[in-house]
Amino acid sequence: MAGLNVLLIAGTHGNEVNAPWLLDQWKGQPSLINTHALNVFSIIGNPLARTKSKRYIDYDLNRSFTKDILYNSTIDKYEFNRARNLINEYGSRGKYQSQIVIDCHSTTASMGSSLVIYGRRTVDLAIASLIQSRIGLPVYLYEGDDSQSGFLVQSWPCGLVLEIGPVAQSLLDSRIVNQTLICLNVIFEELSKVKLGVANFPEKLIVHRHLKSIDYPRDFHGKQSAVVHPRVQGNDWLTLYKGSPLFQYADGKCLHLDDNEIPEKVTPIFINEAAYKEKGIAMILTSREDILVQDSWNMDLNNLLNP
Amino acid sequence: MAGLNVLLIAGTHGNEVNAPWLLDQWKGQPSLINTHALNVFSIIGNPLARTKSKRYIDYDLNRSFTKDILYNSTIDKYEFNRARNLINEYGSRGKYQSQIVIDCHSTTASMGSSLVIYGRRTVDLAIASLIQSRIGLPVYLYEGDDSQSGFLVQSWPCGLVLEIGPVAQSLLDSRIVNQTLICLNVIFEELSKVKLGVANFPEKLIVHRHLKSIDYPRDFHGKQSAVVHPRVQGNDWLTLYKGSPLFQYADGKCLHLDDNEIPEKVTPIFINEAAYKEKGIAMILTSREDILVQDSWNMDLNNLLNP
Repeated sequence: MAGLNVLLIAGTHGNEVNAPWLLDQWKGQPSLINTHALNVFSIIGNPLARTKSKRYIDYDLNRSFTKDILYNSTIDKYEFNRARNLINEYGSRGKYQSQIVIDCHSTTASMGSSLVIYGRRTVDLAIASLIQSRIGLPVYLYEGDDSQSGFLVQSWPCGLVLEIGPVAQSLLDSRIVNQTLICLNVIFEELSKVKLGVANFPEKLIVHRHLKSIDYPRDFHGKQSAVVHPRVQGNDWLTLYKGSPLFQYADGKCLHLDDNEIPEKVTPIFINEAAYKEKGIAMILTSREDILVQDSWNMDLNNLLNP
Repeated sequence: MAGLNVLLIAGTHGNEVNAPWLLDQWKGQPSLINTHALNVFSIIGNPLARTKSKRYIDYDLNRSFTKDILYNSTIDKYEFNRARNLINEYGSRGKYQSQIVIDCHSTTASMGSSLVIYGRRTVDLAIASLIQSRIGLPVYLYEGDDSQSGFLVQSWPCGLVLEIGPVAQSLLDSRIVNQTLICLNVIFEELSKVKLGVANFPEKLIVHRHLKSIDYPRDFHGKQSAVVHPRVQGNDWLTLYKGSPLFQYADGKCLHLDDNEIPEKVTPIFINEAAYKEKGIAMILTSREDILVQDSWNMDLNNLLNP
């Protein structure tokens, strides 16, 4: 479709293997995913980490899109160079300049299929609302937390992360492959409808807004001293009330959710995500928020897709 | 208990972290696991791999207990040295000579709690029957397959592997910790009963005998070309009939179970175990076998425990 380029990235983390595998199969079988005549550039985010089945080589690629790394630093890390390279090729001055990026991830948490958006860019909210109204995906709205920045999709004018789980790292799972396939087909169909002016927006978008990430309980040596409570483990997106059991010690004793900074009820996600251990994150607490869809979202998205 | 030493090993694979964590907690809280007055030597199998959250450093420790590696080779690999060291300390001539070894593992497959025994040593069958009659664990009987040898427990006169899943590698999960805890308490209780002459043996032991391991379908480049079928994925220990869907391509087409070497119905286990990808194993097919418990098993076990 003239003028609309979509950058489709899989394997931004080298040990999240399901979407990259699907893209490989797609190459040999073009009918597998219907791009609805969009120009889709399909690439592997971190090819070297993929060959090594590691999340990254030197640094998390999906934290490497900070302005410092992209435009100031000359530090020679594999992921820093890869980030600059992706911007040079697919960014606003690139040969394959793309207006939209879809970044496919998987998680060891029981998240099901979900979307992640970074901040309240109207174009992101617009697309998220279209996808949610079609297949009901929950949307995690991340609005800044100093502990985490430099996400890939933030470097394009519009971008979503597709996050699907649970699946162990480096493992292909038919459910994850199938869910990724379904989501991509819907995303491309909705984008093409916007481009053609026939998208059907819902009245509201339900998001789960980031409140805070919380760490595991730790002993004096900094070692994890309790595990996620069995009633919480595997129950991503289910409401947790203050006072609920949150962690459990080996002897069965519990630590309860008791935090002055959060509302009476919260929604935990990325519960016990393996890759977040190194970041000191046991889970992320969010709060549901219903956002009315605005006419301006559609206009902004139309302006982006029909430049 | 005089004369009976039990070697309890966790973290033979460095990225199977639940049992090692439980043993750490146990150190600070001795009442957590009841050893029923047995002498239990509790150790970490592969401490260096554990600190690096890797399965192993140079070579799989649980394939390093071959006679060649233990007694002939002088090859300087971390795990080969560790295997020799464990034999020197806890083997038949060691300072901490142990009659029995319990080797605690976890798996990314949905195995639940299960036992693995290697060959039909009567003492192993005897203990497995006692544990199965108490808490119903399925027992995988491995009887040699040239692709796999050198298992740790084979180097002691009696030994079982405790295998619990599903859990992603390097991740603590309350269910896995709790199941490990329950199993260890039962194992120690049953061993102490044998020692005291009050064990209550069942009539039979149900095992699932190893038939063969099967690889993933692969393309001409050797890359995985299909995933485990969604009806099979996560259904370890459930009967599969010849002709059942076994693998699925990205476009939904199936490969069926069709193999002249196997019986009409089989039981798949270690389905899509992440650590077995490098070994070319998509799953292991087994066949159920009921074995009558013999009086001689009890005698053999008694002789071992009361030397």
